[in-house]
Amino acid sequence: MTTEVTPRPAAGTGTGTGQDPVSSVRRITDDLLRRVEQRMRSFLAAERARHAEVDERAVLAVDALSGLVDSGGKRIRPAFCITGYLAAGGDPHDPGIVAAAAALEMLHVSALIHDDVLDDSSRRRGQPTVHAVSSAQHEANGWQGEARRFGEGVAILVGDLALVYSAELISQAPPQVLAEWHRLRSELMIGQYLDVAAAAEFAVDPRLSRRIAQIKSGRYTIRRPLVVGARAAGRTDLDDAFTAYGEALGEAFQLRDDLLDAFGDSAQTGKPSGQDFTQHKMTLLLAWAMQRDEHIRSLITEPGHTPDEVRARLLDTGVPEDVERHIAALVERGCEAIADASVAPVWRDELTDMAVRVAYRDK
Amino acid sequence: MTTEVTPRPAAGTGTGTGQDPVSSVRRITDDLLRRVEQRMRSFLAAERARHAEVDERAVLAVDALSGLVDSGGKRIRPAFCITGYLAAGGDPHDPGIVAAAAALEMLHVSALIHDDVLDDSSRRRGQPTVHAVSSAQHEANGWQGEARRFGEGVAILVGDLALVYSAELISQAPPQVLAEWHRLRSELMIGQYLDVAAAAEFAVDPRLSRRIAQIKSGRYTIRRPLVVGARAAGRTDLDDAFTAYGEALGEAFQLRDDLLDAFGDSAQTGKPSGQDFTQHKMTLLLAWAMQRDEHIRSLITEPGHTPDEVRARLLDTGVPEDVERHIAALVERGCEAIADASVAPVWRDELTDMAVRVAYRDK
Repeated sequence: MTTEVTPRPAAGTGTGTGQDPVSSVRRITDDLLRRVEQRMRSFLAAERARHAEVDERAVLAVDALSGLVDSGGKRIRPAFCITGYLAAGGDPHDPGIVAAAAALEMLHVSALIHDDVLDDSSRRRGQPTVHAVSSAQHEANGWQGEARRFGEGVAILVGDLALVYSAELISQAPPQVLAEWHRLRSELMIGQYLDVAAAAEFAVDPRLSRRIAQIKSGRYTIRRPLVVGARAAGRTDLDDAFTAYGEALGEAFQLRDDLLDAFGDSAQTGKPSGQDFTQHKMTLLLAWAMQRDEHIRSLITEPGHTPDEVRARLLDTGVPEDVERHIAALVERGCEAIADASVAPVWRDELTDMAVRVAYRDK
Repeated sequence: MTTEVTPRPAAGTGTGTGQDPVSSVRRITDDLLRRVEQRMRSFLAAERARHAEVDERAVLAVDALSGLVDSGGKRIRPAFCITGYLAAGGDPHDPGIVAAAAALEMLHVSALIHDDVLDDSSRRRGQPTVHAVSSAQHEANGWQGEARRFGEGVAILVGDLALVYSAELISQAPPQVLAEWHRLRSELMIGQYLDVAAAAEFAVDPRLSRRIAQIKSGRYTIRRPLVVGARAAGRTDLDDAFTAYGEALGEAFQLRDDLLDAFGDSAQTGKPSGQDFTQHKMTLLLAWAMQRDEHIRSLITEPGHTPDEVRARLLDTGVPEDVERHIAALVERGCEAIADASVAPVWRDELTDMAVRVAYRDK
C-alpha cells in the first residue's frame, strides 16, 4: 500500500495548520507504517536473541519469519487499521496502535505460511515458500524421514510461532480492541476451513463462494482492521459506517484477487498464477463462470488442460467484465457508506483513495 | 489426573476447619477442574452456535475440537496451574483461574492436533486423529485434490482455531499471567521445531535431547503452568521454588513419556506405541541407549526391523533401568525444591503427591 502511487480525488477541507492536508495525512500514515515495520523487526530480533541462547537451530524458525516480513507485502491490514484509528481521532504517538497494526501483519504472515501448505504453493512474495525451502533442505542433506513431511512440519510450526507472536503483540494494544481481534482471528480460521472444504467438494454455489470471500478475506483484510483501529481510538460509533465500507471493499478486494490469480502477472504478484485452477478453488469468479459454462469445470478438474484454456473460456463467458463492473459498484457503495460518517473530510478522502487502490491494485 | 488413584504421603498440618485437609484440598482442586471442563465446553458451544449461522460446514471445525476435548486426556496442565494458584493462596471462586487453566488445555489440544500431523499419527486418546478422519472422509466422498493434503489442511486449520481460542480464553485471566503465558507458547513452538529438526538429523546428542525435552515438554507441562497459577494469585516469590520443582518434574514427565512410548500399552495410552522409533525421535532415552549401543541406530533407520527388536536391544543396554533411577532422583529433587517454599504444608503435600503421579503414570 505504501509504495503504490495512484490518482487520488481532490482533497477535502484543510486541517487548519496551513499544510496541504493530503500530504499531511499521508505523512502521518506513512510514519506510523514505518513504526509498524520497526516494531515487527525489533520484536523478532529480541526473540532471535532469546532463542539463540537455547540452540543455534532455534533461530532458524525466527529467521524464516523475518525473511517473510522483510520480503515485502502490501501491508494492507496495518494500513486500514492505522487509517481507521487516525480517522477516528486517535493519537498518532500512542504505541498501542503500532502494536495492533503489527499484530495484524504478524497474523497475516502466519496465515500465508499455513495457506501455502494448504495450497502446496511454491512461491510467495517472489521467494520460495517456507515449506518448499525446508523440504529442499531435507533432500539436500539426505535427512531421515520424508522431505515433504519435514518441510510442511516446519511450516506448520513457524506459522504457529507467528500466530502466537501476533497474540503477544496485540496484548500491547488497548484492551478494548480484543473482542474485535478475537472475532477476526476465529473467523479467519473458519473461513479458511470453508475454503478448503469448498475446494474439495468443488460444487458450484456462488452464495457459499461469496460468503467464504467475505469471512476469510474481506472482513479480515478491511472491515475488522478498520474497526480495530477505531476501537483503539476509543470509538464505537463508527462501527456501522466502517462495517458497510469494509464489507463492500472486502468483496472488491477478493474479486480483484480472483482476477489477479486468473489473469495477473506472476512476476508482479510474486506468486504463481492460475493457482485457483490447480487447487480447485471455488472462487466467486469461477462459480459465476461455471454457472454460465459448465465445460469450465472439466477444464479444471480433468487432466490435460492448460491454464490458458481455462482463461480463454473464462473470457468467453463475459464473467470477467461483469466482475469488473461489480467491483466498480462495490467501490461506489463502499465510498457512499462513509459519506456521512463522523470523520474529518480529509480522512474520508483518504478512505476513498484507499478503496480505489485496493480495488484496482495490480499485485 | 483427576481419575487416577495412587498412594499419597501422609497429610500435612490441618487447615483448622476440622475437615480432613487432604480431602479438602482434593475437593477444591477437583471442583476447579470441573469448572475448567465446563468453561471449555460452554466456550466451544457458543462458538459452534455463532458459526452455525454462517454455514453448516463451519461447525465441523468446532466439533473436531469438542471431540478431542470430550475424549478425555490427563488435564495435567490445568491441574498444575490450579494447584500453583491455590498453593499460592488464590481465591478458588475467581473465574480468572478457570479461564487460565482452560486456555492451557486448549493450547494443548492445538499442539496435539498439529503434532499428530508432524508425526503422521493415526490415533489419539483412543480415537482417530483429526487429519486421519478428514483424509478418510475425502477418500470416501471422492472429492477433488489429494486426500492427504485435505486431511492435513483441515488439521492445520482446526489446530489454528484451538490456538486462537486459547488466546481468547487467556484474555479472561488476570493480566499479570501474560508474560509467562507468552513465554510458554513461543517456547513450545521452538521446542517442537527443534524436535522435528533433531528427528531429521538423527544425530546422537543427549544434551540437545535433554534441552528439547525441557523446553517443549517439561516447562510447558509443569513449570510454566505452576508459575501461571502463582502469578494469577498475585505471587512472584514462588517463582524460584516452582521453577526448580517444575524443571525436575518436567524432565521426569518427559522421560516417563519416552518409556511409555517404547514399552507402554497402546490400549492404555490411547496412541500407537513405538512412535518415537518410526518417527526417528531423538529422545533422551534413545540418545543414551545409542551412546552405549550404536547398532540401535540402524534398527531404527533401516527397513526390515520390528519395534520389538528395538525394545529388546534397548533393554539389553540397561538404559531403561538407568532412566527409572534418574526419574526417582528427579522426583526427589523436585520435592526438595519446594521443601522450604512459602506455601501451606497441605499444598506442599499435594505437590509431592502430584510429582509421584506424573512420574509414575501409566498413560
